[in-house]
Amino acid sequence: MSRLFFLLALSCLGAIGPVSAQASDDDAFAIRGLYDDVLTRSSCHEWLRHLCKRIGHRASGTGAYLSAVEYTRQMLDSIGCDTVWLQPVMVPHWDRGSVEKARIVQSRQIGTQELSVAALGGSAATPVLGVTGEVIEVHSLDELEAMRPEQVKGKIVFFNRPMDPKQISAFAAYGGAVDQRGSGPNLAAKMGAIACLTRSMTLKFDDVPHSGATNFEDGVAPIPAAGLGIQSAEMLSALLKKEAKVTVNLQLDCHRMPDVLAYNVIGEIFGSRFPNEIIAVGGHLDSWDIGEGAHDDGTGCVQSMEVLHAFRRMGMRPQRTLRCVLFANEEFGLRGAKRYAEAAAADKTRRHIAAIESDGGGHTPRGFSVDGTEQLLGRNFKRTLEWRNLLAPFGAADLDRGYSGADIAPLRPQDVLLFGFRPDSQRYFDYHHARTDVFENVHKRELELGAAAMLSLVWLLDTYGVQ
Amino acid sequence: MSRLFFLLALSCLGAIGPVSAQASDDDAFAIRGLYDDVLTRSSCHEWLRHLCKRIGHRASGTGAYLSAVEYTRQMLDSIGCDTVWLQPVMVPHWDRGSVEKARIVQSRQIGTQELSVAALGGSAATPVLGVTGEVIEVHSLDELEAMRPEQVKGKIVFFNRPMDPKQISAFAAYGGAVDQRGSGPNLAAKMGAIACLTRSMTLKFDDVPHSGATNFEDGVAPIPAAGLGIQSAEMLSALLKKEAKVTVNLQLDCHRMPDVLAYNVIGEIFGSRFPNEIIAVGGHLDSWDIGEGAHDDGTGCVQSMEVLHAFRRMGMRPQRTLRCVLFANEEFGLRGAKRYAEAAAADKTRRHIAAIESDGGGHTPRGFSVDGTEQLLGRNFKRTLEWRNLLAPFGAADLDRGYSGADIAPLRPQDVLLFGFRPDSQRYFDYHHARTDVFENVHKRELELGAAAMLSLVWLLDTYGVQ
Repeated sequence: MSRLFFLLALSCLGAIGPVSAQASDDDAFAIRGLYDDVLTRSSCHEWLRHLCKRIGHRASGTGAYLSAVEYTRQMLDSIGCDTVWLQPVMVPHWDRGSVEKARIVQSRQIGTQELSVAALGGSAATPVLGVTGEVIEVHSLDELEAMRPEQVKGKIVFFNRPMDPKQISAFAAYGGAVDQRGSGPNLAAKMGAIACLTRSMTLKFDDVPHSGATNFEDGVAPIPAAGLGIQSAEMLSALLKKEAKVTVNLQLDCHRMPDVLAYNVIGEIFGSRFPNEIIAVGGHLDSWDIGEGAHDDGTGCVQSMEVLHAFRRMGMRPQRTLRCVLFANEEFGLRGAKRYAEAAAADKTRRHIAAIESDGGGHTPRGFSVDGTEQLLGRNFKRTLEWRNLLAPFGAADLDRGYSGADIAPLRPQDVLLFGFRPDSQRYFDYHHARTDVFENVHKRELELGAAAMLSLVWLLDTYGVQ
Repeated sequence: MSRLFFLLALSCLGAIGPVSAQASDDDAFAIRGLYDDVLTRSSCHEWLRHLCKRIGHRASGTGAYLSAVEYTRQMLDSIGCDTVWLQPVMVPHWDRGSVEKARIVQSRQIGTQELSVAALGGSAATPVLGVTGEVIEVHSLDELEAMRPEQVKGKIVFFNRPMDPKQISAFAAYGGAVDQRGSGPNLAAKMGAIACLTRSMTLKFDDVPHSGATNFEDGVAPIPAAGLGIQSAEMLSALLKKEAKVTVNLQLDCHRMPDVLAYNVIGEIFGSRFPNEIIAVGGHLDSWDIGEGAHDDGTGCVQSMEVLHAFRRMGMRPQRTLRCVLFANEEFGLRGAKRYAEAAAADKTRRHIAAIESDGGGHTPRGFSVDGTEQLLGRNFKRTLEWRNLLAPFGAADLDRGYSGADIAPLRPQDVLLFGFRPDSQRYFDYHHARTDVFENVHKRELELGAAAMLSLVWLLDTYGVQ
């Protein structure tokens, strides 16, 4: 197919406008062309290489985050966005410090033994020599809450409920276990524990500790809290079955710093017919401060940039305004997402009709979740299902109602149709919030196939609009 | 769900027998139980570790292949098969030798430069000091065939057509390029070339050379032939654009050895109601002689073993006879597959109703291809499609007509319904026939999900039979 012919075909389709939602042969032909372009001419893998290998991790509040802002701003400029701007937002800054270690200091069977740990975001520091205490193992918040205060006071609480391997979706398995990390340390603190260890949120059997945010209620003094590698957790648990008393020393020197000015990065291509209707596509530019934030969420950022890039590269002028949004501070407060939604609500000249988030990793695409108010879904969900036939040849036809991402969720009350890009989930938690979340663990073609799936959905939304 | 209740539920389903092909809630419940069991109690990852790390590659004709025969025979015995036996077959033995190297020996721009190569199976050796010749680059067999004999005579032919990145299925991209490896050296030999280099069959941009079989017609004297790493191929091609004449030296000391006695390994669980109806599930036990044959096809072997293992572990007695077949010599002659089909045809007391092959890697499942004679498909394909609803919750619902594998293809004339397990294809050719096809590149959960999908299909075929 010649490039000229393809562009002519696309512009004819555009001229038809929002008359029919029926998947047509023309749509199939157009989407095939979008895939061809991304699979042969995309820049997203090279952008990701720069983000991961040149900048590295980009935690909220750090200088590296600002470097990533500047780099992505330049790239969005270079691909020919009509406008690129930075949306300021104050973000929290939690610093891991330089010490995080734990060891079993008293055990009849094995004497002392190192444990593999990573401080949780929001954790308090320990004194320089650490905190030392007896470990009590629990498997749920309920189990801890049912204990008597004197059983917990002065102890180190060890949450050790694994992610459920019977869940087919690793995201579902994560959702069923992550309360131990997000809320476990807070409950332990309220019950008088001196520290908290949480089994890492992964199904992989290794000893790489995983971090992630933990939250303390107002009025609860944070305690030291760390994620524990799976093999360390299994070893500690086995020891606790044999010995009545196992004592652990935990040393962390993380600390909360003052809030810092940061930015959402926004690139825009103006719509030709409905410039006041915005379709946003995005991921979060911040990461945790270990690894390189490759799958979480460098891939979502570069895929979103690639969507706009492809429109420009192919000479397609969208009917509606397309925005690439790279959110600040998803990992530790969602400040960027909240700021973005506030600004969107305040803009009375334009409104978001749809938003797509990619924050489930850069693995092989499976499809999209769809979310929104009941009325909005009532008008649009059935029609969206018809698009499955168009995405099926590319293996991205799973379309189900469901939560579509933390960064676009604040747009929901503004009657925005929300889509979450859904890649295959099996490998994501091997790397998530861990030192193994690096560029080398992202597969170029899988990344590009995801970008092409997102591009196709944006193209359909741009062509047919939202009702 | 208690285990007892689950087994009762299963045996009730069994008692209903082959009355309806309609996917029911009971079927969904049963398949959920099969997945739960495999995802929590499977042995297949440990079996694969042994095959790959203790035995290593298992090329046709080698002692390592016989070690793999003995190991898998023991494992099939240990899981409680009713009978396990070895089916003898004479197999070819091609030995790679210890030297395989290539270098550019004459170039104005870069002087000498090493190239990354792996001899193709069936290649001839070079003299000790190698063959040295001018390189001519072509992109297809047609292009070579259209050349004048004097343009080819005495030269080294370099096939350099990439796998097409626009193909969504990497298997399709492979199918569109592999003629250069399978038949290219034969054509080059017929036209008087002294050697042949073929761009490796992969979409990954690295310099790992990929091997694989090449075939010479009777009467054509084999020439030295090697796969060339992608970066080496790109470099050589770039050089040829700048210089009229680039000369390469290729050294290989591979050679064909006499045929050797080997075996297909077969484990069987007798059917309780229709013992004369066989459902076979298998992969090939041989591998290429670099890497560890992890994805090709250690994963298919251990998944097939796991299917029978799960029946035994869960105390399920199949209605039909279940066979796990580990085929000899898939890579270099298909002798095991032909022997198996001959023996199946000769057995007048029993017949195969269905066969499932897993030889597309151990990646995350997508579904199955279905093949067979027109009449057989006419009676069964529509019904099979109804099973998609049962496999959809597990992401394995792609069911399409299509070629289902080289090892079960010889059973087709015996009116056997053939299924090919289809995992996600994106990563397979990163490793295929290369030193990177190792245990560490197999993902435990993806492997198990594949075994569970195959188990579910076998369970459905056993429950409802073939019409």
